[in-house]
Amino acid sequence: MTHRIAVIPGDGIGNEVMPEGLRVLEAVAKRFDIDLAFEHFDFACCDYYAKHGKMMPDDWFEQLKDFDAIFYGAVGWPDTVPDHISLWGSLLQFRRQFDQYINLRPCKLLPGIKSPLADRKPGDIDFYVVRENTEGEYSSVGGKMFEGTEREVVIQETVMTRHGTDRVLKFAFELAQSRPRKKLTSATKSNGIAITMPWWDERVVAMSGNYPEVSVDKFHIDILTANFVMHPDWFDVVVASNLFGDILSDLGPACTGTIGVAPSANINPEGTFPSLFEPVHGSAPDIAGKGIANPIGQIWSGAMMLEHLGHKEAADAIVTAFEAVLAEADPAVLTPDVRGQGSTETLGRAIAERV
Amino acid sequence: MTHRIAVIPGDGIGNEVMPEGLRVLEAVAKRFDIDLAFEHFDFACCDYYAKHGKMMPDDWFEQLKDFDAIFYGAVGWPDTVPDHISLWGSLLQFRRQFDQYINLRPCKLLPGIKSPLADRKPGDIDFYVVRENTEGEYSSVGGKMFEGTEREVVIQETVMTRHGTDRVLKFAFELAQSRPRKKLTSATKSNGIAITMPWWDERVVAMSGNYPEVSVDKFHIDILTANFVMHPDWFDVVVASNLFGDILSDLGPACTGTIGVAPSANINPEGTFPSLFEPVHGSAPDIAGKGIANPIGQIWSGAMMLEHLGHKEAADAIVTAFEAVLAEADPAVLTPDVRGQGSTETLGRAIAERV
Ligand SMILES: CC(C)[C@H](C(=O)O)[C@@H](O)C(=O)O
Ligand SMILES: CC(C)[C@H](C(=O)O)[C@@H](O)C(=O)O
Repeated sequence: MTHRIAVIPGDGIGNEVMPEGLRVLEAVAKRFDIDLAFEHFDFACCDYYAKHGKMMPDDWFEQLKDFDAIFYGAVGWPDTVPDHISLWGSLLQFRRQFDQYINLRPCKLLPGIKSPLADRKPGDIDFYVVRENTEGEYSSVGGKMFEGTEREVVIQETVMTRHGTDRVLKFAFELAQSRPRKKLTSATKSNGIAITMPWWDERVVAMSGNYPEVSVDKFHIDILTANFVMHPDWFDVVVASNLFGDILSDLGPACTGTIGVAPSANINPEGTFPSLFEPVHGSAPDIAGKGIANPIGQIWSGAMMLEHLGHKEAADAIVTAFEAVLAEADPAVLTPDVRGQGSTETLGRAIAERV
Repeated sequence: MTHRIAVIPGDGIGNEVMPEGLRVLEAVAKRFDIDLAFEHFDFACCDYYAKHGKMMPDDWFEQLKDFDAIFYGAVGWPDTVPDHISLWGSLLQFRRQFDQYINLRPCKLLPGIKSPLADRKPGDIDFYVVRENTEGEYSSVGGKMFEGTEREVVIQETVMTRHGTDRVLKFAFELAQSRPRKKLTSATKSNGIAITMPWWDERVVAMSGNYPEVSVDKFHIDILTANFVMHPDWFDVVVASNLFGDILSDLGPACTGTIGVAPSANINPEGTFPSLFEPVHGSAPDIAGKGIANPIGQIWSGAMMLEHLGHKEAADAIVTAFEAVLAEADPAVLTPDVRGQGSTETLGRAIAERV
C-alpha cells in the first residue's frame, strides 16, 4: 500500500528543512519497507503569491483532498504578504477545510538541548498539548464600526460549539487514558472570559464522566502559563481552546528549549481528509538562505506523520535517531542553534544515516 | 492633605496580608509625614456574599467613588461562590466602573528570591507589563444558542475601541519614554485573530508617530510568551490587550520567581475615580488560615499606591526595605515560600521596622 504525501515546503527556511525531512523519511521508509509517494506543491508567498496574487490555486481542495497526508514546511513572508493574509490563505484553510480539528504538540526535554529552566533534565518534562484547531477565538466573524474615526469600534467573535469542543476533549481524554500518568489539565479563563469559558469548564466536567480513570484539573490560562515555567513536571496532557492552545504549545517547547525543533500535528482523526504535519517554527526570514536552520522540527514532524499513518515503529526509529545524534553532540554535525558549526544538511544527513 | 484610602481585604489570605500592608504604610507615613486615613469595607465572598447573596451593597459606587485610592487584598472563594460571579461582582466592576483602564505590573528579579530560569540574577530582568484593563476580550457580550443540545453554539465578543486602545498605548509609550532603554514591545496575534489584532497593530503604528524616541517591536502572543522565558532581558515596557496582558503579567512574575509577591496597580490616570492597588496573588484557599502567606505583594502594592498619590520617595523606601529584608534572608523572619520558617506577621513587622 502506497501512502501518497503532498509536500509543501512554503517560504524561507521551509525550503531548507524540507529536503532533510524527506531525506530522513526516505531512509526510514527503506529500512521499514514503507511505500511513500511524494508530490510537490509550490503554494507559498514566494513566489506563488507574487505570481498569482493568492496563496494557492482555486482548486487546491480538489488537488489535495485525496492525499494521505500533507507534509508542510513553513509559510509566511511578511515583507511582501501580511501574515494574516498568508496564513488565512493557506495553513488556516487546511486546518479548517480538512477539518484537522486536533493540533497535537509534544513538549519534551531532549538530550543535548539546553533548557532555559534551572535544574531540569531529560525525563523531567514530557507532556502533550492538545489544541482545538478549527474554531474558538480564531474566527472570521466580526467587523468595524465608525471606521477611521475617533469612535471606532472593532469586534471579533469567539465561536465555540459543543460539537467542536466535545471532540477535542474526547481526543485529549483518550490520549491521557493511554498514558501512564492518566492526567488531564484543562486551560480555562472562566473567571474573566465569562461566557465561553465557564461553558468550556462544564463540557470538561461532562466529558470526564466517561473517563473515570483520568484525573482532571484546570487552571486559568494566566497562572497556567506561570506553572509551565514553575512546575512543568506537573503536566501530562493539557487540553486547550484554539488561542490558549496556540500559546501553550509555543510556551511548552520554549520551556524545554525545543521551540526551534518541536513538531506539530494537525489531525483529522477520522481520516476523512488528509492530516498535516509541520514544524512549530515559522519561515524565519532572519536566517533564511543561510543553510543553518535546524531541520529536526521537520524531521520530528515526519515521525508524527508516520505514526499517524500506522507506522509507530518507524516513527520511534526517527525519534531515537535524532536523540542519539543530539546526545553525541558532534559540533561539525549540529547547527548553530544547538552550539554546532554544521549546517541544515550535515544534521539532516547524520540523522538519516543513523536511521 | 489627607489621603482617604478604602481598604478591602477580601477573602482568604487577603485578610492575612492586609494587616501587614497597612502596618508598613503606617510606618512609612509616619517617617515621611504623610496623612493616610483608612476606612474598612467587608465586601467579599466570606461572609458578605453568604449574608447578602451579592458581593457588595447596591450603592458601592457611591460609597467608594470619593476615596483617593482603594487598597485591595484578594477576592474569591470558589467553594461557595463561582469565580466568575465573585470577580464580576467586585474587582472587575471596580476596574470598569472606576475606569481603571491601566493595569500596571512590574516584573523584576529580586535579591533572595530564586528564579525558575537558569543563570539569571537581579538586574537582568526589569520590565513592566501595561495591560488594557476595561474592554477587549473581557466582555459580557455574547450568549448561547441551542442551549443544552448537541447543536449548542456559544459566542463571546471581543470589543476594542479606538478610545480604549489609544489611551493604553499612550500610557505605555509615555512610560517607555521615561525609562532609560525607551523600548516598547506590543503583544499581538494578527496572524490568527484576524479582525481585532491587525487593527491593534495599526493603532500601535499610529501612536508611535508621536514618540519618535521610543523604539517599538511586536511579537505574536505565542512566541512572546516563549521569549519571556528565553529572553526576558529583551523587554522594557510590554503593552497588551486585556487578555494578553493578563497572561503576560502572570508569566512575567513567574519567570522572576515573584508571582507570590508581585503587585498590581489598576489606574485611572486622570484621577476622576479612585485607582486600586492589589497583590497579583489570589485568595489562596489552600494556605488560607495558616498565617504563612507572604505579605510582600500587599506591601509592594502599597508602595505603588503611594507613588500614584505623589509620594515617590516613600514608595521607594518601601521597596528598598523589603529588598533589604529579602537580601538578609533571616529564616526566622521569612515565610516558607521564600525558604523561611517565619510567618506573614514576622515578615511584615521586619519590613515595617526597616522602613
Ligand atoms: C481574577 C481575574 C478575573 C483577574 C483577571 O483576569 O483580570 C486576575 O487574573 C488578574 O489578573 O487580576
Ligand atoms: C501562524 C499562526 C497563524 C499559527 C497559529 O496561530 O495557529 C501558528 O502560530 C501555529 O501555532 O501554528
